[in-house]
Amino acid sequence: MSRRKSYRLADITAKFGGELIGDPGVRVSQVATLEAAGPTDVVFISRPRYLGQLSNTKAGAAILGADAPEAQSIARIVCANPYAYFANVSALFNPAAPAVPGVHKTAVVDKSARVDKTSSIAAAAVIGKRVRIGRRVQVGAGCFVGDDTAIGDDTVLHSNVSVYHGCQIGMRCIVHAGVVIGADGFGIAQEAGTWKKIPQIGGVEIGDDVEIGANTTIDRGTLDNTLIGEGVKLDNQIQIAHNVKIGAHTAIAACVGIAGSATIGRNCALGGAAMIYGHITIADNVSVSAGTLVMKSLAQPGTYTGVYPFSTHQRWLKNAAQLRNLDELAERVRELEAKLGKDKGSQP
Amino acid sequence: MSRRKSYRLADITAKFGGELIGDPGVRVSQVATLEAAGPTDVVFISRPRYLGQLSNTKAGAAILGADAPEAQSIARIVCANPYAYFANVSALFNPAAPAVPGVHKTAVVDKSARVDKTSSIAAAAVIGKRVRIGRRVQVGAGCFVGDDTAIGDDTVLHSNVSVYHGCQIGMRCIVHAGVVIGADGFGIAQEAGTWKKIPQIGGVEIGDDVEIGANTTIDRGTLDNTLIGEGVKLDNQIQIAHNVKIGAHTAIAACVGIAGSATIGRNCALGGAAMIYGHITIADNVSVSAGTLVMKSLAQPGTYTGVYPFSTHQRWLKNAAQLRNLDELAERVRELEAKLGKDKGSQP
Amino acid sequence: MSRRKSYRLADITAKFGGELIGDPGVRVSQVATLEAAGPTDVVFISRPRYLGQLSNTKAGAAILGADAPEAQSIARIVCANPYAYFANVSALFNPAAPAVPGVHKTAVVDKSARVDKTSSIAAAAVIGKRVRIGRRVQVGAGCFVGDDTAIGDDTVLHSNVSVYHGCQIGMRCIVHAGVVIGADGFGIAQEAGTWKKIPQIGGVEIGDDVEIGANTTIDRGTLDNTLIGEGVKLDNQIQIAHNVKIGAHTAIAACVGIAGSATIGRNCALGGAAMIYGHITIADNVSVSAGTLVMKSLAQPGTYTGVYPFSTHQRWLKNAAQLRNLDELAERVRELEAKLGKDKGSQP
Repeated sequence: MSRRKSYRLADITAKFGGELIGDPGVRVSQVATLEAAGPTDVVFISRPRYLGQLSNTKAGAAILGADAPEAQSIARIVCANPYAYFANVSALFNPAAPAVPGVHKTAVVDKSARVDKTSSIAAAAVIGKRVRIGRRVQVGAGCFVGDDTAIGDDTVLHSNVSVYHGCQIGMRCIVHAGVVIGADGFGIAQEAGTWKKIPQIGGVEIGDDVEIGANTTIDRGTLDNTLIGEGVKLDNQIQIAHNVKIGAHTAIAACVGIAGSATIGRNCALGGAAMIYGHITIADNVSVSAGTLVMKSLAQPGTYTGVYPFSTHQRWLKNAAQLRNLDELAERVRELEAKLGKDKGSQP
Repeated sequence: MSRRKSYRLADITAKFGGELIGDPGVRVSQVATLEAAGPTDVVFISRPRYLGQLSNTKAGAAILGADAPEAQSIARIVCANPYAYFANVSALFNPAAPAVPGVHKTAVVDKSARVDKTSSIAAAAVIGKRVRIGRRVQVGAGCFVGDDTAIGDDTVLHSNVSVYHGCQIGMRCIVHAGVVIGADGFGIAQEAGTWKKIPQIGGVEIGDDVEIGANTTIDRGTLDNTLIGEGVKLDNQIQIAHNVKIGAHTAIAACVGIAGSATIGRNCALGGAAMIYGHITIADNVSVSAGTLVMKSLAQPGTYTGVYPFSTHQRWLKNAAQLRNLDELAERVRELEAKLGKDKGSQP
Repeated sequence: MSRRKSYRLADITAKFGGELIGDPGVRVSQVATLEAAGPTDVVFISRPRYLGQLSNTKAGAAILGADAPEAQSIARIVCANPYAYFANVSALFNPAAPAVPGVHKTAVVDKSARVDKTSSIAAAAVIGKRVRIGRRVQVGAGCFVGDDTAIGDDTVLHSNVSVYHGCQIGMRCIVHAGVVIGADGFGIAQEAGTWKKIPQIGGVEIGDDVEIGANTTIDRGTLDNTLIGEGVKLDNQIQIAHNVKIGAHTAIAACVGIAGSATIGRNCALGGAAMIYGHITIADNVSVSAGTLVMKSLAQPGTYTGVYPFSTHQRWLKNAAQLRNLDELAERVRELEAKLGKDKGSQP
């Protein structure tokens, strides 16, 4: 952390655009929160209502939206999308560690596998037969990569990732620890009170620029491949069942479950713990709120929600008791309407 | 894939029964979807409404139910349960890879462990003291098997599975990557504002023919064993707490949580993300819908559901606002009824 | 199990207090359930309603609350908090296995790491650069500990745990198999229909006496650290997002998800599968019921619930249909009230 490279604000706007207000020679080298920032740190504010906090920060510079008022003493970069600008600046300050080429002596690489010499295979990793690993790939400690799987250039597998046989992972992907790709889907057929396993002979195909959060699982297809489109971002502990297709640039928050053969469109957003039924289709640009179970196809873009509103336990008890009889309550209202209609009619 | 063994349709019906309609000499070697199938592939249709798609497939043969209309040009096997028949055919075409006997040189097997010489211990696997591993078992790369645990014949542990000490896994089980069996249950006793750990001295006992999906966790018992009955099928990312008992041939979809000391009957089906309270008992042949939280024992077979119906966010906002006041709404209906009863009574 | 150490009841009350009724010389060596207990086992009953079962147990002694009736033939210890007393007795009978000092020959420890010589690094574990591992620490098989991470005295990592770089774990923690600590938080900024990654440069800081259940994930902070307070107990498959803060001695059941930047107070209890929105604050001493989604900050202690009550599927269909139109039903009640008010007003 000590010999961090620093940049002048003018260097930053030259690189990423935006309007620089204040001293272009201010040198910054890291991003920080408003509270923790010091004079070599950059902060950002994406929502106008937090602008008031700027007066207390010790940051060297701020990234602000065009709606920021002008009366600020701090050096600042004004831009259209402060959060994305911040992402660029932070990536500049915090480049990902490059692969240290080589296969660790405790790693086990099958002699039929092709591992580019620029790639890194960490300790206790195991690489199967005919695996193809591209350039500058990092395979973390304790990872397993099954036979015939391919991993594209610049992809990183963190530690203890399991990728089964016959899967394809694109370029520039980030796969976090504990992820399992290509396990058998839950294909079982009932016969005489027991379950027969359906062999899962498809694979998993993951596009470029996909990030997969820790302990997420993506099952292989029953017959064809499970498909994850390019630029999809998956948070932790997501379950993606067999035969699912997820369109490009869709973002899915943690703990979501997507049941078998569901198709999710492009540029969708699924909130945490949302659950998607099997065999349904969700259009492009759909947002599903956290905790919502979607049991029907959605053909129209928009935001969909289905969450029981929480309350104190006492109020919940009362309301839930009525909910259990809601159909009866509706019937009583119908009766009242009928009665009142009749009563009224009887009064001239 | 290239030198796949092929079968005549007559061979298949000789093996699995069903009525063969069309050329018994048609040779097939793989199962496929209707869209992807070619002349050496078999397709199946389990629901009559998909039968129309048969006319476009290039498949060599189809597996159909007895309700399939006769006017089909494709060679076909008609049977009572097409999905189970398909499972049999796919298993015939896609036999599981046998164990390649031997202990990899990077695996660590305690000298007191007994590993049958027909079994396979993959690279970087670690086998504890007094572990007993049966015949033709496959222990995947990076697995850990704790002291005194036993694994039955023909069971497969995929990569990076952790089995704690003192557990028993039956025969012909399939345990997918990242599964954890036998971790401590969540046993804590409150005292003076802090939590004391209750040692979890039971184990986990898993019957024969159980499949366990990726990253599922099954905790050891507090005093006695957590029990998973024979033929139980568990999908990915299921959490089974300490002291749970699951009856034989129950199937549980992904993301389900079963709290401590719950007892689930035989031949039950739990939909994805269903949640089962602790200390309750669920009878045999119960189905719980996806996303349903069961907080009471269920003594009767049947299907149980409790899911907030989703809608557009705008409609949800309106309905949820009323749900928060449902008890009051019911009271207003009661008042209307009382008033109307009185009004009515006052009219001779 | 055979040469287990035994204790006289008098030894136990001398150590942990409580009132001993019956023969102080009874020797016991293990805890058990009422059904399984034999003459050298101790049982406990925390709720008066189970006291009737005491008459059938073969246990050597029982731990009971002050509310237990006196007419019991079994030797017994009467105390204020039988469950906590049982925890103490069980811990006495079942001490955790101590670390067997040493680094396994297949473990890989970077030469810049400092591992106390009393600690144990198991087979296939990988320890990064400048890692500091305290005294009597146990690092399980297949674990990965990233650069610059520190692990406090007497902490246990079970098998296949992944701890990323730059994290801190306190003393006497227990981290179960498959846990991932310090993976990148889900920080993405949208720009032109694609997602930019926000580097996650904070770490994770875990206090003393924390237990973390199997396959739980705790993400590193975006800028500052994600914080888990001392004495926090986390069950399995919990997801804790970046920048979350959890107060001391809070207990969280399995499958809970806590979204980014949420702050949870001290001594809270979150039921299984509860979901906490991002950027909200929950006060000390709040209980959230299982399956409840909390979408607003909670400033007051108390119990909060929001769960759709389950029923048979048929009843659910009827009630859910009405719930979809609840706003309309409320409007109809308003109309009835208006009409009835008018009607009534028109009657002198």
